[in-house]
Amino acid sequence: MIANHPEREQFRLENVLFALGNPLRLAIIDTLADGKELSCNALRPQDVAKSTMTHHWRVLRDSGVIWQRPQGRENMISLRREDLDSRFPGLLDTLLQVMHRQ
Amino acid sequence: MIANHPEREQFRLENVLFALGNPLRLAIIDTLADGKELSCNALRPQDVAKSTMTHHWRVLRDSGVIWQRPQGRENMISLRREDLDSRFPGLLDTLLQVMHRQ
Repeated sequence: MIANHPEREQFRLENVLFALGNPLRLAIIDTLADGKELSCNALRPQDVAKSTMTHHWRVLRDSGVIWQRPQGRENMISLRREDLDSRFPGLLDTLLQVMHRQ
Repeated sequence: MIANHPEREQFRLENVLFALGNPLRLAIIDTLADGKELSCNALRPQDVAKSTMTHHWRVLRDSGVIWQRPQGRENMISLRREDLDSRFPGLLDTLLQVMHRQ
């Protein structure tokens, strides 16, 4: 089953901010920032349960932050960089700059 | 009673993003963006209960987004613009630009 992804036009700023308003989800965005696609298992911290990650993937996917692509028994995750930059110009760049400054 | 406000150094990006990840709280930030101080009642939408706003003020205050200053029976609310700009350079400006573009 391929999960639903919102169209770019459906993104809402408050949903994206909510999705990123969590340390684990913010760290995932940082990991994916250079454009790579990683499996959900590769992105999962060892001390976090798969079911907990399922929730985080849904929040990130439903807000438009990530693509989730099924491959075998896993999902491959990547950042919707182009869509986010188009809808919210400068937001992702500013967030990444601020994160690396801290 | 003067409510607790975090020091600038205690701000966390994920908490600020969470605080702004809500349409009502995001709209309040837009209203306060030009530096004015308004009473909590002036900022409360007519269809939102005071108790609901108390929750929103707490989320905004605890993350470092607003100052809450008691005056008579009300609280006066203003944006912690200088502190936010210092800790997260460009974030507030980018968010306001994106909001006005939508």
